[in-house]
Amino acid sequence: MSMSLGKRMGAELVGTFWLVLGGCGSAVLAASSPIGIGVLGVAFAFGLTVLTMAFAIGHISGCHLNPAVSFGLVVGGRFPAKELLPYVIAQVIGAILAAGVIYLIASGKAGFELSAGLASNGYADHSPGGYTLGAGFVSEVVMTAMFLVVIMGATDARAPAGFAPIAIGLALTLIHLISIPVTNTSVNPARSTGPALFVGGWALQQLWLFWVAPLIGAAIGGALYRGLAKET
Amino acid sequence: MSMSLGKRMGAELVGTFWLVLGGCGSAVLAASSPIGIGVLGVAFAFGLTVLTMAFAIGHISGCHLNPAVSFGLVVGGRFPAKELLPYVIAQVIGAILAAGVIYLIASGKAGFELSAGLASNGYADHSPGGYTLGAGFVSEVVMTAMFLVVIMGATDARAPAGFAPIAIGLALTLIHLISIPVTNTSVNPARSTGPALFVGGWALQQLWLFWVAPLIGAAIGGALYRGLAKET
Amino acid sequence: MSMSLGKRMGAELVGTFWLVLGGCGSAVLAASSPIGIGVLGVAFAFGLTVLTMAFAIGHISGCHLNPAVSFGLVVGGRFPAKELLPYVIAQVIGAILAAGVIYLIASGKAGFELSAGLASNGYADHSPGGYTLGAGFVSEVVMTAMFLVVIMGATDARAPAGFAPIAIGLALTLIHLISIPVTNTSVNPARSTGPALFVGGWALQQLWLFWVAPLIGAAIGGALYRGLAKET
Amino acid sequence: MSMSLGKRMGAELVGTFWLVLGGCGSAVLAASSPIGIGVLGVAFAFGLTVLTMAFAIGHISGCHLNPAVSFGLVVGGRFPAKELLPYVIAQVIGAILAAGVIYLIASGKAGFELSAGLASNGYADHSPGGYTLGAGFVSEVVMTAMFLVVIMGATDARAPAGFAPIAIGLALTLIHLISIPVTNTSVNPARSTGPALFVGGWALQQLWLFWVAPLIGAAIGGALYRGLAKET
Repeated sequence: MSMSLGKRMGAELVGTFWLVLGGCGSAVLAASSPIGIGVLGVAFAFGLTVLTMAFAIGHISGCHLNPAVSFGLVVGGRFPAKELLPYVIAQVIGAILAAGVIYLIASGKAGFELSAGLASNGYADHSPGGYTLGAGFVSEVVMTAMFLVVIMGATDARAPAGFAPIAIGLALTLIHLISIPVTNTSVNPARSTGPALFVGGWALQQLWLFWVAPLIGAAIGGALYRGLAKET
Repeated sequence: MSMSLGKRMGAELVGTFWLVLGGCGSAVLAASSPIGIGVLGVAFAFGLTVLTMAFAIGHISGCHLNPAVSFGLVVGGRFPAKELLPYVIAQVIGAILAAGVIYLIASGKAGFELSAGLASNGYADHSPGGYTLGAGFVSEVVMTAMFLVVIMGATDARAPAGFAPIAIGLALTLIHLISIPVTNTSVNPARSTGPALFVGGWALQQLWLFWVAPLIGAAIGGALYRGLAKET
Repeated sequence: MSMSLGKRMGAELVGTFWLVLGGCGSAVLAASSPIGIGVLGVAFAFGLTVLTMAFAIGHISGCHLNPAVSFGLVVGGRFPAKELLPYVIAQVIGAILAAGVIYLIASGKAGFELSAGLASNGYADHSPGGYTLGAGFVSEVVMTAMFLVVIMGATDARAPAGFAPIAIGLALTLIHLISIPVTNTSVNPARSTGPALFVGGWALQQLWLFWVAPLIGAAIGGALYRGLAKET
Repeated sequence: MSMSLGKRMGAELVGTFWLVLGGCGSAVLAASSPIGIGVLGVAFAFGLTVLTMAFAIGHISGCHLNPAVSFGLVVGGRFPAKELLPYVIAQVIGAILAAGVIYLIASGKAGFELSAGLASNGYADHSPGGYTLGAGFVSEVVMTAMFLVVIMGATDARAPAGFAPIAIGLALTLIHLISIPVTNTSVNPARSTGPALFVGGWALQQLWLFWVAPLIGAAIGGALYRGLAKET
C-alpha cells in the first residue's frame, strides 16, 4: 500500500463505478427484455465486476468497492479506521456516477420509465419476491457477514496467493443467486445509494436498511473470521 | 494443520452453514419464482459455496463440509479416522442452522409452505423427475465416488498448487447439473439432514438413503483414486 | 510421466467415463425436463468434466479423454505415437461404461425411451437443428482444430503454469455453446461411440463422421499451433 | 516478445478468428433456436474465446484480438505504435475468415437468411433492444474504456501473475451481459467488420460507429489506468 490515498480513492471510485454499472446496468438493460439474461445473468454480472476489478486495481487500493467491506475489514483488523471515510466517499461517488450513466443509456429507448427503479433495493412492497422487512434484514445481515468471512479468508496470508479475486467475485455472484428475490440484493450501501438518488421516493425511504443491515453483517463477519482464524 | 480441533470444527460448522444456506437457499428462494435462476443457477450456487469456502477456510480445516468427504478421505488415507466424528458433528450442526435461517427468510413471504420441502432430497414420489429408489441409489453412489476422485486428485501434491477449490467447487456444480432431477442431488449427508429435520415426514423417512449411498460412494472414490495414483 | 502405462490407461478410462457421464448424462437427465438446464447447462457440464479431471488426473496421464486429442498431440509432437492405441482403447472403454450407467439411471424413470438417443451425435435428420452433413463436417473439423490450438498453447511451457485445465475445460464449454445445434457436438470420437453402441441404428450409421472429422481437425490444429509457435 | 512480427500476426489472426467464430457463431447458430443458449450463453461464449486464446497465444502475440485493445495499449504505453497497423490487419482478416466459416455452416440449414445478420452490430432500428445512436455511442465508449482498465490492470506487473486471461475474458462476458440489448455489443472493430462485410447494407452503413466509439473508449481507458496507476 505505497500508493497515495488520492490514487487509492480514484481506484475505489472507478471500481465502484464498474460494480454498479455492470451489476445494476445488466439488470436494467438486459435482465427482462425479450432477449434477457435473467436473474442468473445479473448474478454473474455483479460477481464479475468484482472479480475483474480485483485483478485490475487490487494492487492499488485493495478493491473494496463497498462501504460495508471497508468497515468489516476495520473490524477484522485489516484496514485502518482513519481511511474508512475517504474510501466510503469515493465509493458512493463512483456509484452515483454509474447510476447516471445507466440512466443516460436506458433513457435512449422509447418507453423507458425511471419509476421502474434502476435496480434499486427494497423490501415489503418493493421486494422483488414480496418478502417482509424482517426477512430482508436477516438476509442482508447474514449475506454480508458471510461475504466478509470469504473476503477475510481468501486474503489471509495462508490462503493460496492470487486467487482472492476469484473467490470474492464468485461469492458476490452466489449471494445474488440466493437473495435477489428477497431485497434485489444489496450487501453494499454504495450500490444501493447510487440508483436510489435517481429514483427517489420509495427507494430513498427504504435506503436506510441497506446501510444498517450490511454494516451490521460486515462487523459480524469480520469478527467471526478473526475469531475462527485467531489472527494476531 | 496446526489449528486446534475446536477451531477446525468451528470452520467446518461455518462452512457447511454456507453450503446449505447457499445451495438449498437459492433453490428455495430463487429457483422457481417468476424471476427464477432455475436448476442451472442452483447448480452454480452449490458449487460456489464450496469454491468460496475452500479459499476462505481451506487453510483452517481443509474445508470438507460433508461427512461423506471426510469419510472418503479417511478411506483414501488423507484424514485421521479419530477426527471423523467431531468433523461430522460440526458439519451437521452447521447444516441444521442453515436450514433454520432459510426457513426464517422464506417464511417472510406470504403463502410459504414448509411442506414444499426446503430443497430436501428424495426418491420415487419425491424425486424431482420421478426416478426410482434404485436409480437414485446408483446416481448418489457414482456421483459421490467421482467427487472423491476429483477431491483426492486436485489436492494431490503433484497437482497444480492453489487450484483445488476451483476444481472441487465446480465438480459439485457439475454433479448438480447431472443429477438434480434424480434425487435433487445430495452426495452430502449433512446437506440432506438439515432440511429434513425441518420438513419431517417423507424427508426424514427417505433420509437414510442420503447417508448410505454417499458414504458407500465416498469409500469407493477414495479407494479408487488411491489405487490409480499409487499413493504411499 | 513416470507412471506406468497401465496406471495411465486406468486414469484415461476413469476420466473419459466422467466426461461422458457428465456431458451426455446432464443432456439425457437434466436438459429438457420441466426443470431443465438447457443447452447452456449441458455446455458447462461437458467443459467442467474436463476442467475437474484435468486437475485430478493431469499429473497421472495428461488427461486427454479423447482419441482426437491424443492423435492431435502426436501430430503436434507432444505425445508418442506408440502410446496412441492404448490410450484410445482406454478412452473408448470408459465412454461405453458411462453410457451404460446413464442408461441404468435414465431407465429408472417411467416412459424412458432409448430411441431418443442418449445424447448421440448426428447430422441431417439427426442434427438437433437440422444441419446438413456438410455443415456438420465443417463444424467438427474447425472446432476440433481450434480445440487442439488451445490445448497445445495452454500447455506450452511459456504459458502460465497450472491454468491449462481451466483453459481447456472452458474451451470445450465454448465449443458446445457454438455447435450443439449442428451435430450435438462431438469433437471426441470416444464420446460419440459410447452412446451410439447403446442406441444403435442411425447413431451407429452416422458414427463414422465423428471419428473422421475430429481426427482431421485435430491433425490440422496440432500442426497449426506447432507452426505458429515454432516449437522444437 | 521475441517472436517475429509475422508469427505474432499469425497468432492474432487465428485468435481473432476464434473470437468471431465463437462469439458471433454461438449467436447465429445457437442463441435463438428452440434449444437456444440465449444472451447469457452468447455472453459467456465471447468471454471464453478471449480467456482460452489468452492462455493459448498470450505468450506469442499478447493476444489482443481487437484493434481497439491494440490502440488502447499504445495510448497506455504498453504497445509500440509502429506495430499497430500490422496487428489490426491480421485481426480484421481473422474476423472476416470467421464470418465466412459461420456463413458456411449456417447456410447448411434450410431457411437460413443472411439478412438476419450474422450477429452484426447496430443502433436505432438495428439495435436489438431499440436503443438510439446516442445510447449506443455512450455504451460502446464506456464499455471499451472499462475493458482497457481491466486489461491494463490485470497485466500490470503488480497484479497476480498468470490470471490476466481469466480477468480479461470474463470482463468481455460482463460487457456483453450489460450491453447486448443496446448495440449487440462490439467494443471491437474487427468483430464488427467481419460480419458486416457479408451482410452488407445497413450493417456496413452503421459500421463506422463500431470503429469510432471503441477507439475513443480505448484511448480513454488506456489513459485512465495509466493515470490511476502512475506507471513509468
